[in-house]
Amino acid sequence: MFPGGRSATAVSVAGLAEGLEGTSRPGHFDGVATVVARLFNLAGPCRAYFGEKDFQQLAVIRRMVRDLDVPVEIVPHPTVREADGLAMSSRNARLSPEHRADAPRIRRALLAARDLLKSGERSAETIADAARGLLEASPFLKPDYLATVDEETLQPVATIERPAVLAFAGFYGEVRLIDHVRLLP
Amino acid sequence: MFPGGRSATAVSVAGLAEGLEGTSRPGHFDGVATVVARLFNLAGPCRAYFGEKDFQQLAVIRRMVRDLDVPVEIVPHPTVREADGLAMSSRNARLSPEHRADAPRIRRALLAARDLLKSGERSAETIADAARGLLEASPFLKPDYLATVDEETLQPVATIERPAVLAFAGFYGEVRLIDHVRLLP
Repeated sequence: MFPGGRSATAVSVAGLAEGLEGTSRPGHFDGVATVVARLFNLAGPCRAYFGEKDFQQLAVIRRMVRDLDVPVEIVPHPTVREADGLAMSSRNARLSPEHRADAPRIRRALLAARDLLKSGERSAETIADAARGLLEASPFLKPDYLATVDEETLQPVATIERPAVLAFAGFYGEVRLIDHVRLLP
Repeated sequence: MFPGGRSATAVSVAGLAEGLEGTSRPGHFDGVATVVARLFNLAGPCRAYFGEKDFQQLAVIRRMVRDLDVPVEIVPHPTVREADGLAMSSRNARLSPEHRADAPRIRRALLAARDLLKSGERSAETIADAARGLLEASPFLKPDYLATVDEETLQPVATIERPAVLAFAGFYGEVRLIDHVRLLP
């Protein structure tokens, strides 16, 4: 991406790039924002499509586009899933058969949390606990984080009063998977 | 510039934004780069003109445009001067008559340094000293910095082997003036 050598210029999005994936991968979203800003300048697209699975990346790009008035329309694409609910990812091919068989619990856990919200629960902690129980019941899955954050600011929320996201990341052996569910009050 | 509130997105140019003006005004060039990046997106210009007087700003913008491949041509404009050599600036109107009468020494001092280079001197320190003498002879002028830096990287140089810049900033009372001269070996 940078034939002239290292880029001295960095694009950073404060507040959205820290936490969640940013905690595990410091500086990752600065790199993403910088490369995507450059790609937009090189290609000059009218529309750019980003998968919702990487919702933090989507939030970072959206905010960058808004703040810098990049003349591009960001079009989110819903997460594509296997028949059993597992979010599609090239990493899934690296799961062992027994890990692959266990992995759909991530989606089931997140849906259980959403169901609890739909039944009227508004406490983020209580809602997350519904997912946590199913996730921790796995003999293989090592959770990295399970966090309820505001959909726009990505800051932690205690009560679901505006659109939020319950986000999960965890490991099956060396394979790190992420998924999330929107929590719409 | 930011009707939606504070910009969470910042564009920064490492290495060029520190030192010289960046020392006196921390974060200044991040603000400049961010606002200019946004203006380029809003206006979509083919060419953008920047005065050479603010040569650090010009270097920061050029590097940003190169790193992010912004589709704009940066056109530098030579510093416009009063008949006595003082670089034009809206600030000049705030100089007292005696400060205004003294101020052309900045240009004369920088030209004396350049003359020394032309005579064969290559030591940045010796060349800067030629300017320093004239600058320090002023009863009014309080120097902020006098620095010899590489024209592209803005890093200090000890010997003039590539295009460099001798840059000066100083105060007449509350009025801060800057000027510089290119040193071409």
